[in-house]
Amino acid sequence: MNEKEKNPKSRKTSTSSAAPKKYYKKKAQNNAEKPDKAAAPAKTQRSKQAKEPKRTPVKIIPLGGLNEIGKNMTVFECSNDIFILDCGLAFPDADMPGVDIVIPDFTYVERNRDKVRGIVITHGHEDHIGGLAYLLKKVNVPVYATRLTIGLIEGKLKEQGLYGKVSLNVVEPKKTVKMGCMAVEFIKVNHSIPDSVGMAIHTPAGVIVHTGDFKVDYSPIDDKIIDLARFGELGNRGVLALMADSTNAERPGYTHSEKTVGASFDNLFKKGEGKRIIIATFSSNIHRVQQIINCAVRYGRKVAVFGRSMINVINTAIDLGYLDVPDGVLIDIEMMNRYESERIVLITTGSQGEPMSALTRMAMNDHKKVNITPLDFIIISATPIPGNEKFVTRVVNELMKSGAEVVYEAMYEVHVSGHACQEELKLMLALTKPKFFIPVHGEYKHLKKHADLGKQMGLPSENVIIAEIGNVIETDGSKMSVVSQVPAGRILVDGLGVGDVGSIVLRDRKHLAQDGLIIIVIGIERATNEIVAGPDIISRGFVYVRESEELMDEARMLLTSTLSACSAAELKEWNTLKGKMRDALSDYIYQKTKRSPMILPIIMET
Amino acid sequence: MNEKEKNPKSRKTSTSSAAPKKYYKKKAQNNAEKPDKAAAPAKTQRSKQAKEPKRTPVKIIPLGGLNEIGKNMTVFECSNDIFILDCGLAFPDADMPGVDIVIPDFTYVERNRDKVRGIVITHGHEDHIGGLAYLLKKVNVPVYATRLTIGLIEGKLKEQGLYGKVSLNVVEPKKTVKMGCMAVEFIKVNHSIPDSVGMAIHTPAGVIVHTGDFKVDYSPIDDKIIDLARFGELGNRGVLALMADSTNAERPGYTHSEKTVGASFDNLFKKGEGKRIIIATFSSNIHRVQQIINCAVRYGRKVAVFGRSMINVINTAIDLGYLDVPDGVLIDIEMMNRYESERIVLITTGSQGEPMSALTRMAMNDHKKVNITPLDFIIISATPIPGNEKFVTRVVNELMKSGAEVVYEAMYEVHVSGHACQEELKLMLALTKPKFFIPVHGEYKHLKKHADLGKQMGLPSENVIIAEIGNVIETDGSKMSVVSQVPAGRILVDGLGVGDVGSIVLRDRKHLAQDGLIIIVIGIERATNEIVAGPDIISRGFVYVRESEELMDEARMLLTSTLSACSAAELKEWNTLKGKMRDALSDYIYQKTKRSPMILPIIMET
Repeated sequence: MNEKEKNPKSRKTSTSSAAPKKYYKKKAQNNAEKPDKAAAPAKTQRSKQAKEPKRTPVKIIPLGGLNEIGKNMTVFECSNDIFILDCGLAFPDADMPGVDIVIPDFTYVERNRDKVRGIVITHGHEDHIGGLAYLLKKVNVPVYATRLTIGLIEGKLKEQGLYGKVSLNVVEPKKTVKMGCMAVEFIKVNHSIPDSVGMAIHTPAGVIVHTGDFKVDYSPIDDKIIDLARFGELGNRGVLALMADSTNAERPGYTHSEKTVGASFDNLFKKGEGKRIIIATFSSNIHRVQQIINCAVRYGRKVAVFGRSMINVINTAIDLGYLDVPDGVLIDIEMMNRYESERIVLITTGSQGEPMSALTRMAMNDHKKVNITPLDFIIISATPIPGNEKFVTRVVNELMKSGAEVVYEAMYEVHVSGHACQEELKLMLALTKPKFFIPVHGEYKHLKKHADLGKQMGLPSENVIIAEIGNVIETDGSKMSVVSQVPAGRILVDGLGVGDVGSIVLRDRKHLAQDGLIIIVIGIERATNEIVAGPDIISRGFVYVRESEELMDEARMLLTSTLSACSAAELKEWNTLKGKMRDALSDYIYQKTKRSPMILPIIMET
Repeated sequence: MNEKEKNPKSRKTSTSSAAPKKYYKKKAQNNAEKPDKAAAPAKTQRSKQAKEPKRTPVKIIPLGGLNEIGKNMTVFECSNDIFILDCGLAFPDADMPGVDIVIPDFTYVERNRDKVRGIVITHGHEDHIGGLAYLLKKVNVPVYATRLTIGLIEGKLKEQGLYGKVSLNVVEPKKTVKMGCMAVEFIKVNHSIPDSVGMAIHTPAGVIVHTGDFKVDYSPIDDKIIDLARFGELGNRGVLALMADSTNAERPGYTHSEKTVGASFDNLFKKGEGKRIIIATFSSNIHRVQQIINCAVRYGRKVAVFGRSMINVINTAIDLGYLDVPDGVLIDIEMMNRYESERIVLITTGSQGEPMSALTRMAMNDHKKVNITPLDFIIISATPIPGNEKFVTRVVNELMKSGAEVVYEAMYEVHVSGHACQEELKLMLALTKPKFFIPVHGEYKHLKKHADLGKQMGLPSENVIIAEIGNVIETDGSKMSVVSQVPAGRILVDGLGVGDVGSIVLRDRKHLAQDGLIIIVIGIERATNEIVAGPDIISRGFVYVRESEELMDEARMLLTSTLSACSAAELKEWNTLKGKMRDALSDYIYQKTKRSPMILPIIMET
């Protein structure tokens, strides 16, 4: 428990990003004062600590979710104990072509695998659980979460062949999980998925509150209001630090209650009378699905469910009792034809216009079971996530072209956010009254706004920390600062490959996408260094060759003359030879087309 | 003038999309009734026309701007005369990697080059003039536009080496240009660039009003309010058809006056006291620039201008008297250091976060002259165009990380739209009282909303036409309908190439971007059909080869055994041989990685 105090060097060593793989074996011997990155601040802090009663320091190490949307993950470390809060994925940007998902860099956790006591998860969204399977494959430790969250994690582990190999533990809100010298208390919050919690982390240095993703909903669908009282109680007893969701920090006011969407649905079901109703929403928004089912029951409609993730989540939610569906309301897709279409509601994925989703396929007239007609009334119950605007617009346009009525604007209140706006963020700050404040979950602009809110409420600037992933934020209960840096970043997952697509592969993919490629092949006779074949030219993604024969012929002639101008010595130096061919062709092509395709000279030795 | 009546077949023939290249020579002989696409409606219409007094029919052929944002272009045709209204570009979508701009398909205009009397342009935005140089290279006819628009077109023609080779004609609002049997009247409108006009097209069949891009601004910066009275006068005398801007048809209410932005600037200049102010906006929004200059004068600041297009447009606007800049206000970038930074305003491009723009380079700490610090107050006076949200966000984040204050939210009213909202669209419909209504400029959802507005105001459904590009909309003054189709679509411009990037090249680029490529090279001896070299494997954009040696080695072994299993006969059939190698490698790679790189087998004959 107090190993740290016995060995005051361990802090410095364990946070050095340049540390060798096995440095834990070395740390006992590493007592000599060496100048390194972490040394200076650690030293300063130690001398200050000497004047105050010493408490075992705690390290907070965000490995994702700061200066970015997604892949939320934070490491908490105290003495010889580590636990991890959330392990999410992010979706790739436009500058990561071919990449499926992005997960955090787990290096620091792997290097400290022996210290890791477990993983706590705040809720079941992909940006909080989507990296979990990849982490568990490297460091298999117990996972703790609420019941629905565990249910959703189970599904993910099955897909990755990990089911039954991991210890999954259900924790109810108000309960606490011991993590070595720390203890994590689960606190009910509201969000766009049921069973979401924030965490109060009880450490030797003090209590750290992490809200997870949250909003304040005074009329939630499951009647479970965020446990504001507990946050207040903690605040009154003394909260060392607050880490709070910054997603909506730019938005003034309050986020509306999920119930307002129910009221809109009610109006829209009236408006859609006589038509088939199709509603697209996030599969994980079980409260939204509940409200659709409630409306369906009220208006005497049957419900059919479309989209793999929607079916999976709804099944899990029903199994675990999070979705209340009267008998006979849900019908199989195959049974739809037995009912008149105005007696049916379809719930589907595709609210983000995802190209392979059920709604997109319906819009593109490419769905086996559903054909969109003027007798459809379609509600897109979501807001486009930044980057998806054009996808959603395309789907809306195509649905409308089939004559369907499509409701998608904000004016109908068919969607509310799951994240707290400014007034709720202030409420959380007012309840917890933290000494230190670390805004989390957001791009820099969100963190900055959230930090400003904190300062406006009286927090001293030096007690508000806008951190970066990999920062080691250390606190002994009286001070808090970034003391060093550990490896952090993004690991790209493409198919089965985890991390094998890096900056060079991405650079090549972007280059290829931009201007295509030209391959030059020549054959050289080993013994004589004579060119016995080629130069041949093959291109892809550059120009339509059949219409550019002249250009390609001229290019070939240019290469032939470049090669014939080469001396026998030059023909032996293949790298020089390749460079010559590349330069000659590249100049010619740019002059003719103002394009710079990738040029790949290949020499075959025969 | 009435050739059409002498030869009633010409309509049918000239609108057939399947027509051979030289069909104009054939049309005189082509009098036999043949069943083709256009024949049926043409026949029906003829028989109906017989009952009514016959008026020379007019054809409206949109070649861009419908079901899309950008590349606005419409052909008007009557008897033996054609003119073109606008010729814009569109910016490429994410599914057109490497493409610089998109222009309309000019095939129909080229086929009818002898009929073309001229081109009229409504205003100087890229989506209305950006395709002009490409069109003029094919069909060089006189261009008519207002003074500023001509000034901006001149700049574009210079870039394309066309300056002095084209007849450019300034037309004042209220003036009319004769286009054979038609006449085009220029009518002042408000928009986000000065000197914008709508057009009243006087034809034998009646008056067609085209609004161009417009909004209603009762307090415009240049005091020139849209000529609502003339639209009303035309309406009272009888408008056959209205073609109106649908960009903001989804938005209720009115678009605010440009002056509201000036009021915001005034407040923000106060707020930014003591700091350098940097404002990014669209270079073409000369009224916005005027308001920045007015504020600068009022607050005793000098103005420096950044970004090539901003400098070009401001120079043109000053030369032509569209920008009123007191002496000594504008300073050269090189002179900035002579002034205290709180006495300076920078006006810059980059309001859309364009990667190469001045503001983006400032944000990325990559600008030679401007270094962002906490002493900067930055205003982004624009709304992200759909698709650019992430670019803008990135720039905002980076600027904020440098400590600058950044104003970018809608709440500050630092931007107003240049397009009419629903109440203004209704006003235009009420003033012109058209018999037929064709919403233009917008995606399907915009056209649909606009069409619905027209119907709500009493237009019969059959008189409201949501058209597609290439549709030939014909009217004789009493009826209007789509009678046939001409070639229309998108031509991609990449570097110097116009149209040489088509669907195959794009497909390859996307495939290469997604999973990269693997090249297999083998050498075969011509005489013996023996494999004398390879198989060698080269990959790009697939995996980082140094870390995937095992995979690549196994792939090579697999190919070696595939080849050695080939019979002598198979080694002669190179296409079969390539297919065998491709299939074997493709299966192996997918099984190992769940990726499908492009596989390119190359056989060298030695």
